[in-house]
Amino acid sequence: MKKAVVLLSGGLDSATTLALAQEQGYACYAISFDYGQRHRCELDAARKVAEAAGVVEHKIITLNLDNIGGSALTDTSIAVPHQLTKGIPVTYVPARNTVFLSLALAWAEVLAAEAIFIGVNAVDYSGYPDCRPEFIEAFATMAQLATKAGVEGRPIRIETPLLHLNKAEIIQQGLRLDVNYANTLSCYDPDEAGRACGRCDSCRLRAAGFTQAGVADPTRYQPESN
Amino acid sequence: MKKAVVLLSGGLDSATTLALAQEQGYACYAISFDYGQRHRCELDAARKVAEAAGVVEHKIITLNLDNIGGSALTDTSIAVPHQLTKGIPVTYVPARNTVFLSLALAWAEVLAAEAIFIGVNAVDYSGYPDCRPEFIEAFATMAQLATKAGVEGRPIRIETPLLHLNKAEIIQQGLRLDVNYANTLSCYDPDEAGRACGRCDSCRLRAAGFTQAGVADPTRYQPESN
Repeated sequence: MKKAVVLLSGGLDSATTLALAQEQGYACYAISFDYGQRHRCELDAARKVAEAAGVVEHKIITLNLDNIGGSALTDTSIAVPHQLTKGIPVTYVPARNTVFLSLALAWAEVLAAEAIFIGVNAVDYSGYPDCRPEFIEAFATMAQLATKAGVEGRPIRIETPLLHLNKAEIIQQGLRLDVNYANTLSCYDPDEAGRACGRCDSCRLRAAGFTQAGVADPTRYQPESN
Repeated sequence: MKKAVVLLSGGLDSATTLALAQEQGYACYAISFDYGQRHRCELDAARKVAEAAGVVEHKIITLNLDNIGGSALTDTSIAVPHQLTKGIPVTYVPARNTVFLSLALAWAEVLAAEAIFIGVNAVDYSGYPDCRPEFIEAFATMAQLATKAGVEGRPIRIETPLLHLNKAEIIQQGLRLDVNYANTLSCYDPDEAGRACGRCDSCRLRAAGFTQAGVADPTRYQPESN
């Protein structure tokens, strides 16, 4: 059975990506990162999603990106904004997708996997440079040159099934494949009980997607956000 | 003063690269990785080299690549070979330079550094795919698209001052800049006292380089290797 490494954050997009990879017939190996993110309860969400999907293995890599800093998501002295901003927002984590894809690449090579799936999206997204199609394409070119697999003619593909879908379409794909979105967490600033703030970029994009898809959002919100 | 992030393994090549970056007028920020390598005493060497050079900061990132496996350098069940082999050797660590450069990129972006220096070499090297010029070029292209710095017109350059030098020329550059090679460790399989095996690829390349440069090698060898 062909293998794929799937980046799993615990959010809506990556849970849908995992379901789409399985639909394509891949034995899926999920990889998540404990990178010092303030919303670390997304790792609990990732565990639930991985278990519900029945992945072959779920690896959580520990990596102190908070030691490097530079983002509201890893530095508690920078507040998570509660409204959409122009340009690249402070929740951008420097080189995050590059780092995550590089580690997925390492594992994919060891597993002799054919592909890496990542749930980046260039429609309803926060404006991060490392979610754009041109970045993904450049990463794939680099990955082919970087690896023994690539040199030997077995390049590892980077698959982005959500790239051109809007949030509502992503949700529809997931519901078609029985993804339980109650297991997922999209919020950048959840409380200790794992309840969403309802106000950050990620919450707003998610809520709008459920509304547009015409289905109920199972997200649990913090009391003050109602 | 312009800033650079320098990948520092504790080996001969990276120590020389650091000296060359300083000669070019960069304030240097050294980054090393505790990645589960069997030759972890190279981190002690990295600390000595960073201190002797007077870097602005030396960051050691912990990262369990041994959790991913697939290399003689991170998996003690795979022996380090004592002779040069054809093709890509078992000491190749899947996607290692991609992972290391990605983390250096994250830090460079936070520091607003202009460049990342890496001591890859395409002449006297072990045949790793991620030491080739075409890999470095593809990484730089990807990095420009991945980062806020790149998008905003301040791409972070990847500098490889050793790329086309042979080992003897690298040593001559280092001696010219007063690098104390007694602080460095190149061996893949040192003993607990940090003494080199004298037989692995890396030891052989180093020893040949000192011989060719016509200078004494300060490497301490294990008794049985004499």
